[in-house]
Amino acid sequence: MPGSTHQTLPKTSAGRFFEDFHLGDMIVHATPRTVTSGDVSLYTALYGPRFAVQSSDAFARGIGYPAAPVDDMLVFHIVFGKTVPDVSINAVANLGYADGRFLAPVFPGDTLSATSEVIGLKQTSSGDAGIVYVRSVGRNQRAEIVLSYVRWVLVRKRQPGTPAHAELVPDLPKAVPPEELGQGCPLLDLSAYDDALAGSPFRWGDYAAGERIDHVDGMTVEEAEHQIATRLYQNTAKVHFDAHSARETRFGKRLIYGGHVISLARALSFNGLGNAFHIAAINGGRHVAPLFAGDTVFAWSEVLEVAALPGRRDVGALRLRLVAAKNRTCADHPLKSGDQYATDVILDLDYWALLPR
Amino acid sequence: MPGSTHQTLPKTSAGRFFEDFHLGDMIVHATPRTVTSGDVSLYTALYGPRFAVQSSDAFARGIGYPAAPVDDMLVFHIVFGKTVPDVSINAVANLGYADGRFLAPVFPGDTLSATSEVIGLKQTSSGDAGIVYVRSVGRNQRAEIVLSYVRWVLVRKRQPGTPAHAELVPDLPKAVPPEELGQGCPLLDLSAYDDALAGSPFRWGDYAAGERIDHVDGMTVEEAEHQIATRLYQNTAKVHFDAHSARETRFGKRLIYGGHVISLARALSFNGLGNAFHIAAINGGRHVAPLFAGDTVFAWSEVLEVAALPGRRDVGALRLRLVAAKNRTCADHPLKSGDQYATDVILDLDYWALLPR
Amino acid sequence: MPGSTHQTLPKTSAGRFFEDFHLGDMIVHATPRTVTSGDVSLYTALYGPRFAVQSSDAFARGIGYPAAPVDDMLVFHIVFGKTVPDVSINAVANLGYADGRFLAPVFPGDTLSATSEVIGLKQTSSGDAGIVYVRSVGRNQRAEIVLSYVRWVLVRKRQPGTPAHAELVPDLPKAVPPEELGQGCPLLDLSAYDDALAGSPFRWGDYAAGERIDHVDGMTVEEAEHQIATRLYQNTAKVHFDAHSARETRFGKRLIYGGHVISLARALSFNGLGNAFHIAAINGGRHVAPLFAGDTVFAWSEVLEVAALPGRRDVGALRLRLVAAKNRTCADHPLKSGDQYATDVILDLDYWALLPR
Repeated sequence: MPGSTHQTLPKTSAGRFFEDFHLGDMIVHATPRTVTSGDVSLYTALYGPRFAVQSSDAFARGIGYPAAPVDDMLVFHIVFGKTVPDVSINAVANLGYADGRFLAPVFPGDTLSATSEVIGLKQTSSGDAGIVYVRSVGRNQRAEIVLSYVRWVLVRKRQPGTPAHAELVPDLPKAVPPEELGQGCPLLDLSAYDDALAGSPFRWGDYAAGERIDHVDGMTVEEAEHQIATRLYQNTAKVHFDAHSARETRFGKRLIYGGHVISLARALSFNGLGNAFHIAAINGGRHVAPLFAGDTVFAWSEVLEVAALPGRRDVGALRLRLVAAKNRTCADHPLKSGDQYATDVILDLDYWALLPR
Repeated sequence: MPGSTHQTLPKTSAGRFFEDFHLGDMIVHATPRTVTSGDVSLYTALYGPRFAVQSSDAFARGIGYPAAPVDDMLVFHIVFGKTVPDVSINAVANLGYADGRFLAPVFPGDTLSATSEVIGLKQTSSGDAGIVYVRSVGRNQRAEIVLSYVRWVLVRKRQPGTPAHAELVPDLPKAVPPEELGQGCPLLDLSAYDDALAGSPFRWGDYAAGERIDHVDGMTVEEAEHQIATRLYQNTAKVHFDAHSARETRFGKRLIYGGHVISLARALSFNGLGNAFHIAAINGGRHVAPLFAGDTVFAWSEVLEVAALPGRRDVGALRLRLVAAKNRTCADHPLKSGDQYATDVILDLDYWALLPR
Repeated sequence: MPGSTHQTLPKTSAGRFFEDFHLGDMIVHATPRTVTSGDVSLYTALYGPRFAVQSSDAFARGIGYPAAPVDDMLVFHIVFGKTVPDVSINAVANLGYADGRFLAPVFPGDTLSATSEVIGLKQTSSGDAGIVYVRSVGRNQRAEIVLSYVRWVLVRKRQPGTPAHAELVPDLPKAVPPEELGQGCPLLDLSAYDDALAGSPFRWGDYAAGERIDHVDGMTVEEAEHQIATRLYQNTAKVHFDAHSARETRFGKRLIYGGHVISLARALSFNGLGNAFHIAAINGGRHVAPLFAGDTVFAWSEVLEVAALPGRRDVGALRLRLVAAKNRTCADHPLKSGDQYATDVILDLDYWALLPR
């Protein structure tokens, strides 16, 4: 008789602790996900992005896409969500991102799956936790890589004091070099790119390094909104969903997924960067402080670098610092106060966007 | 070097002020939008409409549509949303609508874009603002007009005292004449129109002018709901989203987009008007008082007029007054108290609906 | 002139009272509904399910489905929602379910409609209400039955004291026999079933009767979430939506649709039952206590029975008890305290799930 007498194994996964990670481990993450126009609608409803390329099949086809591509951050969140149960369910903190590359556009109907390779390990001096570095890769149903990025997280040990198997801190680039950008964007026919429909008269050449742009508007976040978003990404990190257990934590309440802040700030950045339609790379990012329901997010951007792409006359790249703050407007471009981030700053993201030339 | 030394222009748009509008201006609005079945699902989830024609491809095909058309008010909100950054971002008040016509059905996959023509201007006696009248037109990807309507808004001046360029108050019809209705509804084969599936035994001929219908149910609105809806429409009016800045305003909190109230009341009206499946025209409308999160919306309707459509034996038109109230039931059909609207009334909408004969 | 002089009938439906039901009545429910990928996205966003078969077209096709089927509970909620205005709008309580069978998979694009047959009636001893038993059946656009289940509800009389037309308490099975399971699941090619992608190494044979599984995570529910869900199902039960009228009720606030709890608990059960991809039958269920916004749902499962399916070597069945509790974790498997359900238990569901062998 099946299963009637033999001792059964515990069925619930508690996730990996620090000592469960080994250098070179390749983790296949669960739940492949077909991205649909329903996901795109929800993404629009949750953040309000207005980039024409992602919003309109007609606009996207006019310039050379087969259809409107899915917002790059929606792709990021879906891939990221898959890694959570295996990589960060026992994480104390999400420490950083590096070398994120959007390598192929994703369209409704594509199915995304994800793997992560353990590329670095370092235990803390106290010995009760350690930093795990993974390179996570998202692929479509043809096994083409659509996204690749490194993230590192501080993960608890199951048994404090257990020695690490090995230690290695990977050498990570400060930024993706501009000559490696653009794989995620097909060659475009800009004769059909209509600035009025796109919502901005400013193209790549109109921006200068050092320029700062206040994105003006603010967006207040509700518990239902970030929970709906984070579940859409099948991200299971309990800190976002469980108000009961959160009462015992440092903050006493649910934390909003850091990626939610990135998407809000990116959507706000349309006012000032309306033609920055494609995120080509994420160079790095810090969730400087937590966001909670009821808080209002504002954002501003600084142009860090203006770069042509070798061999391409259709699009150019801007390296942008996207800063989000909570419960204060950003006309004065808040960032640091001395060596420290200013009190209200919650996000400091460094990314490459592509714009039509 | 691109953008490295020359002076750059400010990138953020503050929107048009009264003196930026000129009679005859034709404004091309940003962000064309492909409407999808995801948008339809969200619309259903946000308001709960139950009209069979919009809910079921099978039902719609049976009577002669190629597929279930998108709810007319979803089309309205998407077109309206596009006009906000260009027309009403600096508006003090949304004063009225007239001559709204739904001229072609919209199906998932269609891409909507919008333009507005400035057809009237009148500055206020105090000289610090003015009324702007625009005719806004929504088109699909074949440039067919799907919706056309006039709205007027009170817009602040950038510089109080600046004279208006010209003044003209347009002559607007009190109602769309019934003989001009019906373009947005194909000729239907009613042999397949099943009243039980549609949810109402009452067809066009069963209604009489003067009849009043209480729609019974109430719907409480949450902040997350109206924000999700309003972002779905890519409507950027900050009063709906920014609780931080709202603290300094008259109401001290976020205002709910008036169109949200229309859609709620329309969905509630299914109980009593289940066969009124198509909005053919919006004759006029007033957002009598604001709605806030936590309030509960109730609604009732009055049949103002019963009209046949020339040459059509499939459908007839009812001119309806749709009244919404907050935090009180509508069995007593609240409307006015003397010359004033009753305290709890929030919407007084005059529209034409089509029903099967 | 149409409708101008003759007396019109009241247009609003108040729904059926106990004396309006007759044994053998066949009720055709309103609003056929085309299920779309938008509905699927919303379902994912509202509950966070991670079953690979429903999440990925590629995964589903690999094992023999034409596409990812719609989550069984989404089908249940849509069919259930249609029955509400006709069966339970005047219900005092939803008493139970029996003999629920999922008989054909549903895919995006399918249109669902529903009918209910009155199979039992019994008035209460006090004479002011009665129990109505209905068998509700959901069909797709080809008139294939996709779901059939019995539910019984306590319905108020319009006139207390009116005698019942007839009385009959139907004989209902305690459970669907395992040899009748599996119609809703095509024959699968398990060579393509990837446990890593599915998220669980445990197949049918790894479970044993008597085994208890804590699903660990908790999910807090917001008003906006359950309202969005319940409207998505076009369920009109006013207790879920009208905070204004709810103030006069026993609880003083909105009640969350019981099906919302089932879907939350089912999604949480992925951790421990990741390969239990298909609900084949619902044997019975009790909503033991109400759930309110702000509460956090936890869940655990007990394996009641392990059954092979005659003639099938691809999948086997587990009979599962799924228990949900509010505002307390379930590591200790709360259920009863003496004869009574433990205070925090809110759901006790008995169902059959299929897993790959």
